[in-house]
Parts: sequence; structure tokens; C-alpha cells
Amino acid sequence: MAKYLNIENSAEAVIARIHDEETAPRFKEIMVAVIKHLHALIKEVELTQDEWEIAIDFLTRTGQICTAERQEWILMSDTLGISMLVDALNNRRPENATQTTVLGPFHVAGAPELKMGTNISLDGVGESCLFQGRVLGTDGTPIAGARIDVWSDNADGFYDVQQPGIQPKWNNRGIFTTGADGAYHFRGIKPVSYPVPVDGPAGEMLTGMGRHPYRPAHTHLIVTAPGYQKLVTHIFVGDDPYIDSDAVFGVKETLMAPFQKAEGGDTVWECPFDIVLAPVQSR
Amino acid sequence: MAKYLNIENSAEAVIARIHDEETAPRFKEIMVAVIKHLHALIKEVELTQDEWEIAIDFLTRTGQICTAERQEWILMSDTLGISMLVDALNNRRPENATQTTVLGPFHVAGAPELKMGTNISLDGVGESCLFQGRVLGTDGTPIAGARIDVWSDNADGFYDVQQPGIQPKWNNRGIFTTGADGAYHFRGIKPVSYPVPVDGPAGEMLTGMGRHPYRPAHTHLIVTAPGYQKLVTHIFVGDDPYIDSDAVFGVKETLMAPFQKAEGGDTVWECPFDIVLAPVQSR
Repeated sequence: MAKYLNIENSAEAVIARIHDEETAPRFKEIMVAVIKHLHALIKEVELTQDEWEIAIDFLTRTGQICTAERQEWILMSDTLGISMLVDALNNRRPENATQTTVLGPFHVAGAPELKMGTNISLDGVGESCLFQGRVLGTDGTPIAGARIDVWSDNADGFYDVQQPGIQPKWNNRGIFTTGADGAYHFRGIKPVSYPVPVDGPAGEMLTGMGRHPYRPAHTHLIVTAPGYQKLVTHIFVGDDPYIDSDAVFGVKETLMAPFQKAEGGDTVWECPFDIVLAPVQSR
Repeated sequence: MAKYLNIENSAEAVIARIHDEETAPRFKEIMVAVIKHLHALIKEVELTQDEWEIAIDFLTRTGQICTAERQEWILMSDTLGISMLVDALNNRRPENATQTTVLGPFHVAGAPELKMGTNISLDGVGESCLFQGRVLGTDGTPIAGARIDVWSDNADGFYDVQQPGIQPKWNNRGIFTTGADGAYHFRGIKPVSYPVPVDGPAGEMLTGMGRHPYRPAHTHLIVTAPGYQKLVTHIFVGDDPYIDSDAVFGVKETLMAPFQKAEGGDTVWECPFDIVLAPVQSR
């Protein structure tokens, strides 16, 4: 290798500077891969000086728009499919278990613990929906004492935390715990599709690629039960127009539920969805 | 390809969303490469959820520490060898021309135009040095009317703009224009090595890899002349202790100058350095 950095040796010249005795092996492994891919990328596209300046500005603004409520780097990771890839790598589940998807930025810990059947739509905005099913192990056993933490947007496409003072606190949120039969049911609304924020760098990137910013309608779930792997997932409205083009790539075939018109009563929709948890040891 | 993103198809699933008719071809080329390398990187290292969170935080802070005076993303690019790679890709010069290196963050446009021989060290901090040589074409012709814009740190390791109120304005800066013989000479100081800023994410990264933050001593030059390619480069102190480990990978063999003890007079050092410009058409 030449002594100084040139086009041919550039990644190796940088990697050669890592001092093994002062570097954690895992950090080295990650940095070697980062350096190799970054240099290969720049060479492949023969990045111009002007493009480099645009990239520096873009990266800078992506951090600078972040606040306690806005995480543009997560949005970038989401819209580039990175969040779902990391989720998939870290949550390999048996095929018959309910699959995971992204947590998203709108979960709030400490939602009210509610009696089975409670209506979580506090503002009444949206079409009422009865969610129901069972929490089961991969062997079909009903799971008692499973906690189901649910949250969704209202029919205007916003979560309560996005509209403080407009939506009641804990609107469309609640925690339900299964009994001996593993069954759950609660009322909420049929969720609606909504766009991710597009007024920052991630929005510019989406527009630049001709991509829309919409997520298909979904209700979020975190399901936990002793002895089972924590499940972070969504129930998607199967016939949503954005189901095949989720801006954050969160959809999986097995997470689509039929939203069916209910017969009579004050519930307009019914969403049957069984939740299958993998035991802790079956990773 | 499966309909939804999975570990195997992840990059392709994201790339498939690019709408060609709404996407500039060059932007598509760059984004395809970005997406491919990002996904390959994450899979290669099997990034964990915790590591992803650390990465999100690191990227966010890198933007947030940036100000009008501090550009941490450029520092990141510099310390990962990306700036020098981009420079090399965009400034291919004939072998006998003076080679380019990084501009760095401390150039200030509008430095005083000075008479040949002027001393640019206004604070007198440092060991005096006579810089001299000729500006030549690659065919050996002396170039008249070449403008040499020079700047360096003082012997405390800071540029004037880093110490307003401590160093005089335009300390160690000036512009010299060659006459018919292409010759130049001016007085300054023998520059000293200094560290890049380490109180931010780039510093954490360097420390994590066991790397020091020092740049070997150098004097910056921008040389322009009608009919010749603009040259942005450094003259390095050839025997600097950091010459083989520049934190930003800026060193090239041909940019090292001998700094020699001068015989008598008030100049302690002499730095002979000819500057060879490539004609505009010889890219």
C-alpha cells in the first residue's frame, strides 16, 4: 500500500489507522464496514465537490431539525428501510408467530390500564371499531396475563401527543390484560393513513425520489407476557390504498387484518386479529 | 422479489420505490448507491437495536454541534478520509504538477495583497521562515501574474480567526502576485502541528479508534493563474512527527518541503517550494 491516501487505497489507508489495542473489537468491526462502504460509495458515484457540499449541508440539517419531539434521523432511517431491516435482523420469530414491525415515534409509556371492552376513542373522531382476538403461544395455548398496550391515530390522522389541547390525553391509547382464555376485545376507531413529516430533509429526499410520505392505516401494539418474547407490531388495515407503498416499509403480509362491517349495534367495524407470541427460548 | 421488505430483499425493496419519471437521473444514481451500501453495511455487521440507537444519537449530535464557525460533518468527512477522496476524484492532475489537498475550514477570502517579501507574521509568535520558489507550468514555463493566497496557524497552533482579539486580523495571511520570472518569496513562520477539535462526535470517534487528532504542520496555498487550473494545497513540514498520521489524511509525498536552517540574517528557516500548475485543458 502506498504510504499516503490515494483513490485506490483510500479505505485501507483509513482502516490502517485504527489502533487495535485501544479499540473495542465490535467498534472496529463496525468502523471497518462503515469506512469500506463509504469509500466504495463515493468512488462508485464519483461524487463531485458540489455534491459533497450538498451532502454535508443535508446531513447537518438532518441533525439540526431534531428536537425532543422530532427525530429526523429516525425518520431518515425509517424512510430508507433501515429501521425495518434492523428490526428484522434483531427479531427473527418462528413463522407462525406474529411478526414484528417498527415501534414508531408515538408510543407513550404509562397508558391507562383498562377493563376489557373499554372504548379508547375519547374524542369520538372516527369510525368505531371492535378489535378482538386471542393471545396464543406458537403451540396454540391461550396466554393468560398478556398485556396488550395499544395506540393509534384518530381519524384526522394525528396521535394525541401531536395535538395536545385538541385531543384528550390518552386518546386512542390503553392497556388490556388477558384472562385465562387469552381473549381480548376493546373498542377504538378504524385507524386512517397519514403522512410522515415532510417539512425537513427526509421530506426533501422522498420528494427527490418521487415518493409519497404516507403510512397505511394501522393500530400499534406492544404485547408482553411472562415467558414470551416481547412483540412490537402493528395491525394494518388490509385494504388501505398505501398498503403496498408504506413510506417506512413496515408492512408484512401477516400483519394485515380484515376490517369488516359489523352487523347492527353501535360498532361500525370489526377487526379480528389473533396475536401469537414466541416463547423466550425460541429465538 | 417478495412484496414487502425482508432481510434478503431490503435494498431492492427500497430502490423499487424510486419513481424514475419524477427523479433526476443523477439523484437516482446516488440514492441507489447510498441505499445499497447502507443496507449491505447493516447486514454485514448485523447491527443490534442498541447500536442503531447509539448511531441515531451520534448522527443527531454531529449536526447539532455545528455552528457558523464549527462544521462537525466536514470534520467527520475529513477524519474518515472522505474529503481527501473527493478531492482526489475531482482534481486529477498530471504527475509533474503540484498535487491538491483539502481546503480546510480556515481560509478567509479577501486577505491583503502584499508586496513580494512582506512578513505575514503580524504577532511575531513563532520561528521566522522565508518561503520562496517559482510558479511554473507543467512544461517548465514561469507563470507571470499568478496569485498565491497563503495562510497558516501561528506557533501556538491557532489561526487568526480562531483567536479574534488575541491574534491581529490577517495574521499569517496574505496574497502575493508573481512577476515575469514567476518567482515568489515572503516571510512567515514555520507552521506547527495542531489538533482538530475533539470535543464533539468526531473526537469521540477518533478516541474510539485509538487515533490522535493532530495535523502535521503545514502552510495553506491557493494558487490561481489565467489559463491554469486552480490549485488548493498545503506545503507540509517534511519532518513533522505527525507527517505519516495526519488526522485528515491530507499529506502527499510531493507536498512535503524541506524546512532548512537559514545562514545568518533574521530568518531562522528557509522553505524552498516550486509550485507547478496544470493548464486548464489538461484534466
